[in-house]
Amino acid sequence: MSQNIYDTAEFFAGYSVMRRSIEGLDGAAEWPAVQAQLPDLTGKRVVDLGCGFGWFARYARSAGASSVLGLDMSQKMIARAKVDTRDEAITYGIADLEELQLPAASFDFAHSSLAFHYVSNFVRLVAMVHRALVPGSHFVFTIEHPIFMAPRNAGWSTDSEGRRIWPLDSYAVEGSRTTDWLAKGVVKQHRRLGTTINTLIAAGFTIRHVEEWAPSEPDLAEHPEWAEELDRPTFLLVTAER
Amino acid sequence: MSQNIYDTAEFFAGYSVMRRSIEGLDGAAEWPAVQAQLPDLTGKRVVDLGCGFGWFARYARSAGASSVLGLDMSQKMIARAKVDTRDEAITYGIADLEELQLPAASFDFAHSSLAFHYVSNFVRLVAMVHRALVPGSHFVFTIEHPIFMAPRNAGWSTDSEGRRIWPLDSYAVEGSRTTDWLAKGVVKQHRRLGTTINTLIAAGFTIRHVEEWAPSEPDLAEHPEWAEELDRPTFLLVTAER
Repeated sequence: MSQNIYDTAEFFAGYSVMRRSIEGLDGAAEWPAVQAQLPDLTGKRVVDLGCGFGWFARYARSAGASSVLGLDMSQKMIARAKVDTRDEAITYGIADLEELQLPAASFDFAHSSLAFHYVSNFVRLVAMVHRALVPGSHFVFTIEHPIFMAPRNAGWSTDSEGRRIWPLDSYAVEGSRTTDWLAKGVVKQHRRLGTTINTLIAAGFTIRHVEEWAPSEPDLAEHPEWAEELDRPTFLLVTAER
Repeated sequence: MSQNIYDTAEFFAGYSVMRRSIEGLDGAAEWPAVQAQLPDLTGKRVVDLGCGFGWFARYARSAGASSVLGLDMSQKMIARAKVDTRDEAITYGIADLEELQLPAASFDFAHSSLAFHYVSNFVRLVAMVHRALVPGSHFVFTIEHPIFMAPRNAGWSTDSEGRRIWPLDSYAVEGSRTTDWLAKGVVKQHRRLGTTINTLIAAGFTIRHVEEWAPSEPDLAEHPEWAEELDRPTFLLVTAER
């Protein structure tokens, strides 16, 4: 059983007021990059692992998906997703990604946004997703970038000349990282980028795209505060094919 | 035409006394990881891009390769490689990886060690290697890891508590990095890990393995000085299939 910090009052309150929780997909900096990786969803059976408030589930339906299964371990998020959704082709359920089993060959597309870095047994999860997808289908997910997650002190610092630096260390030391983000003691699982890629390959996936998200010039014109993403990435986006 | 700093007296003198230049492949920390990625070379036509003193070319022959073409832009290195090699199945030549053209489908395996991070036009190079390989063949190469290459000040620092950190910045700012390594003003080309992977995929390669080299426990017992590789990787190893 995974840590379920998402249902604590502190975490849920903080999560609920994040821009991406209020504005949905358009409130997430990395969404246009994710969207660019999506296949044509028309008629596809979609599963969303870590669906939160259901923003992606509803988007997938608007983009033509025939059905969407949205899963999350947060009871509060699933409750809110159900309230916010009027669509019988969307099903929500509570699930722990450490233990979830999906029926074989039952989905045509799998998505996950910023959930897998909470999962310890990524090897099991990836093998399970592979089995659940039909051949030729795509798997698009984001996680926190390992550069973002690795350091003991994962926060900006300055060098002797006063310039912003990201104090990287422990990059090759895989395993748990405990941080205070929205709530105290949130446990994340650090894996090197190569480990994530090799796990997908070992499960039988073909790597189609690896994106270490950074803002474009137009992005920066609109959001100058995103400039720090040029110094170190927060988001890693991967597209794999079953 | 690329910068050819390798033939300057300063660089060549420094390069010649590096452990890997004197001891060969066994003097390179990452060699066991590279070796583990090599296919059976028996009967294969091998090309080595950036062959230096010819250590890999001679190894490939000892491992059964039918022929090896070793290419380097350093005249001094090629001269030394020729002196050190007594094998008519090994051919050495001077070549600039920015401009090199190899005949189509003329090789069964391509290797490169720590050369591509000097190449500006990686897209052209990868497409050229793809054409030069026969279908099903492998391409194994190492480059300096982009975490190693990215920073303005690519050297160890300490945080306020005196702990070793790698002061990462500019990770998403791709392009040239000028460093003083063996000689002053050595120009390297920084690309994000994702860019390297996506370039290979776009050229038609399938990614088989991505390794951000780090020492094992036995490695550390023998070489405690390698512990810093746990904090930030120096070497990136990629295996792709044509």
